[in-house]
Amino acid sequence: MVKLAMLGSGFIGRFYADSIQGLRSRDKIVSIYSRRAEQAKKFAEDYQCEHYTTVMEEAIAHPNVDMVCISLPNNLHEEAVMLCIKHKKAVISTKPLGRNAAEAKRMLEAVENAGIFNGYLEDLVYTPKFLKAHASVQSGALGRILWAKSREAHPGPHSDWFWDLEQAGGGCMLDLGCHCVEIARSYIGKDIRPVEVMCWADTQVKPIDAEDHAIGLVKYENGAIGQFEVSWTFRGGLDLRDEVMGTEGTIWTNGFLRTGFDMFTTGKGADYVAEKAETNTGWLFPVGDELNELGYNHMFFDMFDSFEKGKAPKETFYDGYIVNAVLDAAYRSAKSKIWEPVQLQDWRGLEGQTKQGTLVEFDADHYLVKEEMTHYGTKKLILKEKATGKIVERIL
Amino acid sequence: MVKLAMLGSGFIGRFYADSIQGLRSRDKIVSIYSRRAEQAKKFAEDYQCEHYTTVMEEAIAHPNVDMVCISLPNNLHEEAVMLCIKHKKAVISTKPLGRNAAEAKRMLEAVENAGIFNGYLEDLVYTPKFLKAHASVQSGALGRILWAKSREAHPGPHSDWFWDLEQAGGGCMLDLGCHCVEIARSYIGKDIRPVEVMCWADTQVKPIDAEDHAIGLVKYENGAIGQFEVSWTFRGGLDLRDEVMGTEGTIWTNGFLRTGFDMFTTGKGADYVAEKAETNTGWLFPVGDELNELGYNHMFFDMFDSFEKGKAPKETFYDGYIVNAVLDAAYRSAKSKIWEPVQLQDWRGLEGQTKQGTLVEFDADHYLVKEEMTHYGTKKLILKEKATGKIVERIL
Amino acid sequence: MVKLAMLGSGFIGRFYADSIQGLRSRDKIVSIYSRRAEQAKKFAEDYQCEHYTTVMEEAIAHPNVDMVCISLPNNLHEEAVMLCIKHKKAVISTKPLGRNAAEAKRMLEAVENAGIFNGYLEDLVYTPKFLKAHASVQSGALGRILWAKSREAHPGPHSDWFWDLEQAGGGCMLDLGCHCVEIARSYIGKDIRPVEVMCWADTQVKPIDAEDHAIGLVKYENGAIGQFEVSWTFRGGLDLRDEVMGTEGTIWTNGFLRTGFDMFTTGKGADYVAEKAETNTGWLFPVGDELNELGYNHMFFDMFDSFEKGKAPKETFYDGYIVNAVLDAAYRSAKSKIWEPVQLQDWRGLEGQTKQGTLVEFDADHYLVKEEMTHYGTKKLILKEKATGKIVERIL
Amino acid sequence: MVKLAMLGSGFIGRFYADSIQGLRSRDKIVSIYSRRAEQAKKFAEDYQCEHYTTVMEEAIAHPNVDMVCISLPNNLHEEAVMLCIKHKKAVISTKPLGRNAAEAKRMLEAVENAGIFNGYLEDLVYTPKFLKAHASVQSGALGRILWAKSREAHPGPHSDWFWDLEQAGGGCMLDLGCHCVEIARSYIGKDIRPVEVMCWADTQVKPIDAEDHAIGLVKYENGAIGQFEVSWTFRGGLDLRDEVMGTEGTIWTNGFLRTGFDMFTTGKGADYVAEKAETNTGWLFPVGDELNELGYNHMFFDMFDSFEKGKAPKETFYDGYIVNAVLDAAYRSAKSKIWEPVQLQDWRGLEGQTKQGTLVEFDADHYLVKEEMTHYGTKKLILKEKATGKIVERIL
Repeated sequence: MVKLAMLGSGFIGRFYADSIQGLRSRDKIVSIYSRRAEQAKKFAEDYQCEHYTTVMEEAIAHPNVDMVCISLPNNLHEEAVMLCIKHKKAVISTKPLGRNAAEAKRMLEAVENAGIFNGYLEDLVYTPKFLKAHASVQSGALGRILWAKSREAHPGPHSDWFWDLEQAGGGCMLDLGCHCVEIARSYIGKDIRPVEVMCWADTQVKPIDAEDHAIGLVKYENGAIGQFEVSWTFRGGLDLRDEVMGTEGTIWTNGFLRTGFDMFTTGKGADYVAEKAETNTGWLFPVGDELNELGYNHMFFDMFDSFEKGKAPKETFYDGYIVNAVLDAAYRSAKSKIWEPVQLQDWRGLEGQTKQGTLVEFDADHYLVKEEMTHYGTKKLILKEKATGKIVERIL
Repeated sequence: MVKLAMLGSGFIGRFYADSIQGLRSRDKIVSIYSRRAEQAKKFAEDYQCEHYTTVMEEAIAHPNVDMVCISLPNNLHEEAVMLCIKHKKAVISTKPLGRNAAEAKRMLEAVENAGIFNGYLEDLVYTPKFLKAHASVQSGALGRILWAKSREAHPGPHSDWFWDLEQAGGGCMLDLGCHCVEIARSYIGKDIRPVEVMCWADTQVKPIDAEDHAIGLVKYENGAIGQFEVSWTFRGGLDLRDEVMGTEGTIWTNGFLRTGFDMFTTGKGADYVAEKAETNTGWLFPVGDELNELGYNHMFFDMFDSFEKGKAPKETFYDGYIVNAVLDAAYRSAKSKIWEPVQLQDWRGLEGQTKQGTLVEFDADHYLVKEEMTHYGTKKLILKEKATGKIVERIL
Repeated sequence: MVKLAMLGSGFIGRFYADSIQGLRSRDKIVSIYSRRAEQAKKFAEDYQCEHYTTVMEEAIAHPNVDMVCISLPNNLHEEAVMLCIKHKKAVISTKPLGRNAAEAKRMLEAVENAGIFNGYLEDLVYTPKFLKAHASVQSGALGRILWAKSREAHPGPHSDWFWDLEQAGGGCMLDLGCHCVEIARSYIGKDIRPVEVMCWADTQVKPIDAEDHAIGLVKYENGAIGQFEVSWTFRGGLDLRDEVMGTEGTIWTNGFLRTGFDMFTTGKGADYVAEKAETNTGWLFPVGDELNELGYNHMFFDMFDSFEKGKAPKETFYDGYIVNAVLDAAYRSAKSKIWEPVQLQDWRGLEGQTKQGTLVEFDADHYLVKEEMTHYGTKKLILKEKATGKIVERIL
Repeated sequence: MVKLAMLGSGFIGRFYADSIQGLRSRDKIVSIYSRRAEQAKKFAEDYQCEHYTTVMEEAIAHPNVDMVCISLPNNLHEEAVMLCIKHKKAVISTKPLGRNAAEAKRMLEAVENAGIFNGYLEDLVYTPKFLKAHASVQSGALGRILWAKSREAHPGPHSDWFWDLEQAGGGCMLDLGCHCVEIARSYIGKDIRPVEVMCWADTQVKPIDAEDHAIGLVKYENGAIGQFEVSWTFRGGLDLRDEVMGTEGTIWTNGFLRTGFDMFTTGKGADYVAEKAETNTGWLFPVGDELNELGYNHMFFDMFDSFEKGKAPKETFYDGYIVNAVLDAAYRSAKSKIWEPVQLQDWRGLEGQTKQGTLVEFDADHYLVKEEMTHYGTKKLILKEKATGKIVERIL
C-alpha cells in the first residue's frame, strides 16, 4: 500500500486520483494540496483524504505520506520536486517534467543526488495498446524499426495556465508533444540516441503567444525517424493515434476516437461523453474505460510496484529530461528553420550506432530489390546487378 | 480484502485469477482446487496460493477462505454450490449458472435459503464498453429500446468438456448464448419479462451431439426483441459484437476484433496474440488489455465491493436462473420449431407491460409518419389522416 | 447503345437515370413517364429526354424505345409489365418485382411466354463489394457456406406510397428484405432451394398498418441459413451491412456508414451529405460515389450488355419471383409463429440437396473436433472416439 | 467518343485501359505502342485495339487517333509529348509529368505553344472520396484549411524502371509524393502559392540509389501546411490515407486498406486480392472496385468530357509542373537540411496572400481563447485580456 500526497486538484489530479483509488486498489491519497482552499476541501471529500491544505510543503511533509504526486502547472514542478527532496519523499511528476531541459536536468540531478525514488508520469507509454504493441515490437514482429509516428490533437486544454507561455513554458508542442516524443522513442528504442530535430510550429488559430499546431521529425542515431503531430486546433474530439513501421510489419493504434464503440443519438438524455468530445448528438465515439485506455492504471501499477520493490519504474525523471531536450531542439528548429541537434549532457544509452546496410544478397551477381506477384498473376524478381548497379527484372 | 478459494485451474480459472490479483488489487486467492494435483500445484505457484488440493470440499472449507469462485465444468456447479452452503461460504459462479433452469433454480433457492452471498460471473455485462453504453441507454440517449442483439462467435472452446453434451448441458448456445441473452436483457431492462423465444440451432460442422451454431429471438413483454447469434464454427478469431437500437439512437460495440489496434506482420518474432486468434501473421487485431476489455476487472470489483458492503451484486444467481430459463425455451424452440414460452416460476420484475402505441400527433387531423430532407433538397412531411388512415405527403 | 423509357420520375427513377447516363455512358433515356406532367417535364429537361408524357403506354410504345425501366410504386409493376409485353419491349423492373409471389409469377410467365428480355433491378447484388465478395465465395475462399446475413435499416422511405399497405404490398420487409433475401441467397447459391422461413415482424414505432421492423431466417435445402434484419426505425443513417460465414472464412461488408470516409464539421457550410443521413453536423460518414457503391453502374452494365448480347442478365424476373415467394413465407410466419414452407411452383435449381456430414477423420479410432494453441502456449487436439462417442483431449 | 493511342502496355497502361473501356463507355483505344512486340500484340488482343506497334510515333500518328495517353517510364514522357505536338494530337500523361520541373516546364510550354489539349493523369484527386471531400471543403464545411496530409506507402512498385534513378528521376518521393502534393494542394487551394518545403528522405531498406522513404512539409503563402508521407518499405499492402484539418472540422479518408470490406480466409481457394496486397490468407481488405476507388473513371470522364467540350480538364500539364517544382524543392531540402523555396517561374494563382489573424473578439476587454464543458460538468471560458495579454478563466 502506497500513501500519497496529491499536489493539485485540477483536471489531471482528479484523473490520477480516480485511477490510484480505483477498482480494488490498495493505495490511498492521504493529503491533498490545492492553491484554493475550497477546491482542496472538495477533493478531500470526494476522495476521502484525511488531510488537505493550501500550503504545498504541508502536504509533502505530512507524516503519513510516502510519495508525492505532482499534478501542478509546469512552472511549479521544480519547486515541488525540491520540497520532496527536502522532506525525503518519493516523487512522481506529471508531464512534461520541466518547461525545458535545463529545468528538467536540475530536477533529475537533485532527485538522484538525494537518492529519492522518482517517476515520470508519461501515461501514454502505459496504455494497454501501447504495452502490447511495444511487446510485439520488442519481440521482433515488425523487424527493424524505421519510423514511429505519434499524433495527439484536440480542441485545446481545459485550464487557463496551459495557454500562458510563462506558466506552461510552451504551447501544444510541450503539452502534447512530450507524449509523442516518448512514444516514438520507446518504439525506436530508449537506448538509441535522438540526434537532431526538424520542426514546424505556428500559431494558426488561437490568440496566444505559444504555438497551437506543430509537426516535427526526430532523427535517431541508427537512422530511424520519430514523428510528432500535435495541435490544439483539431475539431472532432481527442485524436490519439500512433503508427510504427518496421521492415517486417506495421502497427496502428487508435487510442480514442475509434475504439470499437459507436453511438448515434438524436440528443435526448445525453450528457458528458468523453474527454474533449465536442458534441453530444449525432455519431459519438465514447471510450469504455478512459482511465485504463489512457494508461493511468498500468502507469501507477508500475510506479507503486517499483517503489515497493525498490527499483526504478519504466519512466523516470531521466526520461523526462530526454523528452525536454528533444523538445528544446524542436523549439529551436521551429525558429532557425534548420535541423537542430539534440543537446544531451547526460546520455545513458548506446553510443556510435549506425544505419544498417540495405544490400540483400540474392546470388553471386545480384542483390534482391523485390519479389512480387503482379496484378496479372506473374511472379517476378527485381534485382540489382552487383557489378553494374543496374536494376533488372527476372520473370519466374 | 477478499480471500478466495478458486475451484478449477483451467483456462477460465486462470483468467479470473489474473484479474483478481491484477494491478494493485488487495484481493487474494488463498486456496486452489483442481482435479489434477500437478495442475493445482502449478496454479498455486503461479498465483502464490497458500493452499492447494484435489478435494473440492477442502478448498471450500479452508478457514482462510471468505468466498468461493466456481470455474468448473457446468455439470459440477450444483455440487460446488451445495458445498458452499454447507460451509456457509459466499459463492460466485462462472456462466452459465446451470445446465438448465431446473439446476439453476435449485442453486438459487439453496443460496437464498441459506442466506449466502451469491454472484453470477457474467463478465460481458461488466465490460467497460457495455457499462458506458448501458449508462447511455438508461439515461435515455437512445429513447425507447426496440431491439438488442448480441453476437459471440469463435472457432470453438479450448477444453474437452465443452464439447461433451452431458458435462456441458448444451453446445454453443449454452456456452455463448448465456452472455448474449443477459446483454440483450440488460439493454431492454432486467425488470421486463422475457416471454417467448424462437430459435434455430444446428450442428453444421463439428462431429458433436450439441449445436455448433444457433440464432434466436427473445420477445419481451413490452414488445422489445432480444437477439443472439452464437457459433463455434466462426473463422477469424473471437467475434464479439453487440448492437442496440432505440427510437432515438443506436449503439454498436465491438469487443474484440476491431478495437483500434491493427497490426501487420510477415511473421518474424510473433507468438500468442489474443484469445482465439487463428493466425499469427498478416493482419492481426490484438486487444490491449483482455482482462479489462472482457469485463473481468469491473465484474470482480462489483462482486467484492458488494460483498464487503453487504449488498447484492449487479448479477446474482437469480439472473443466472433467468438466463437458463430463456435458453431452455430456446432449446425447446429449436426442436418444436415454434415460439416457446419462457417458463419462469420465479419472476421478480414488472408485470403486465404492454407495447407502447405508435401514434404521434401532428395536428388535429393527422398523425406524423416522417419528416425529411430529400435527396434533391426538398423538405417534406409524410402524414397519416386520422379520419381515413390514408398516407399523404406534404411538401414544405 | 440502349434507348430507354423510364416509368416514374421519383427518387429511384432519378438515381437510375444518374447511373444510366453517367460518366461516359453510351446509353440514353429517350422517354419519361410520370403521373404528374410537371415532374415529367422537369425530368425530361434534367436528363435531356426527347419525349415526356403522363400516359404510361405512350412512353412504352414510343418508337425510339428499346427497353422500359419500371421505377413505379409496387402496385403498378404488373400493369407496366403487361404493357411492355403488348408493345414487345424489353423490360427491367425495380425491386420488389411484385407485392407477392402471385403477382410476380404472373409477370414472370407473361414475359417468358412473350419471349421478352426481362431484368430484375436488384442493385445490391451488383455492388462492387458484393461482386468481389461473391467471387471469393465462389472461388471457395470461405469453404462451405453456413450462414449469410444481410441487414438494411434506415429511418424510413422518402415517398408516401411506401407507407401505404395497399400500394406497397408490405412494409420494410418487402421494401428492404427483398434486397437481403437475394444477397443471402446469392452467397448460399442461387441453385439451392430455400425451403422454409421463420420471421418476426412488428410495427414498433410508426403509425402504419405494415411492419416497420422485421427479422427472419431462411433455411436452405443444404442446411445453410440466410438471415435478414430490416427496419424503418433505425436512427443514424443508412445501415447496410452483410456478413457471410463459411467453414474456411468469413466476409463482412459495410456498404454505407463505414466506408473509409469520416468527416467532422461544426456545421458551417454543410448541406446534403448522403442518402438517409440524419444530421449534417458532428461526425458524418459520406459515401464517395453512391451510384457505384450501391451497385447501379454494374447492374445496368449487366442489363444492357446482356440485352445487346441476347442473353439473360444475372438477375431476371425469375429471381424476383423467388424473392417474393420467400417473403410471402416470411409474412405467413410472422402471423402463424411457426416455420412456414416456401411455396415455389416454379423451381429451376438443384433438387434433393442434403446437409453435409460433420465427421472429420483423424485416425482409425478418432474424429477430429479441434486443434488449437492455448493461451498458455500448449498445442492440443480435441478428438471424438469413434467407438464410444466420447470427447477426449490430447496434448501434443 | 474519344479514340486513343495508348503508349505503354505495362501495369498502369492496363489499369487505364480497363477504365477507359470499362462498363458502358463509349471510348476506345485504337492503337497500342509497346517496346516489346509480343506485349503490344497481347494488349491489342485483350483490349480489341485495331493497331499495335513497337514504334512510338506510329501509334501517335495513326489517323484514327484523337488523343494520346502516355503510360511510359518517366524518362520517356518528354519525347512522347514532343511527338504528340508534331502530330497535333491531344495528350494526357501519367504522373509525375516530368522527372523534374525543368522537364515539366518544357512539356508545358510546348503543348501550350502548340495549342494542344493536355491533361495530367493525377487520379487521386479524382477518387470519389476525394471529390466529395473536396466539395465539402470548398463549401466551407471545415472552415479555413490549416493542414492537409496525404500518405501513400506500399512495399514498392512492380516494374524495374521505377527502381532506376536515371529512368525514374527519383524514388518513392517522385513516384508517390506527386500524388500527395497535389492532394494537399487541392485541399488548401490550387490558387495558393506553395512557398517552401522541408523534407527528410532516406534509403532505409532497399539496395537502390533513390530514396525509399520520405516525409515532407510544404508551406503555402497563407500559412497552411501540406504534408506528405511516402514509402516503398511499408508492409501490409497499399496504405492510402488523407487527412485535412480546418478551423471548423476535419476529414479522414482511407482509400484502400479499410473501406468497409473485411475478409478472413484460412487460404483455400484464394487468389489475387488487391493491388500490392502482401498475403492471401488471414484477414484481408479487398477494395470493391479498384478502378473507381482509385479515381480512374472520374479522371477519364473529366479528360474526355473536357476534350469534347473544348475546355481544359481539372488537371493539366500546368498542375504537373507545379507538383514537379514542389518535389524539386523537397529533393533540395533533403540534401541541404533547410527549408528550400519552391522555384516557380510560371505562377498563375493568387499573389500576396497572408496568414489570417487569430484574435477572436469576445467583449470590449477580451479575446476568446476557448469555451468548453469540463469533465465535471462546469462550463467555462478561457479569455485573453486585451490590455495585458493575460489569460484568464471565467466560470459560467
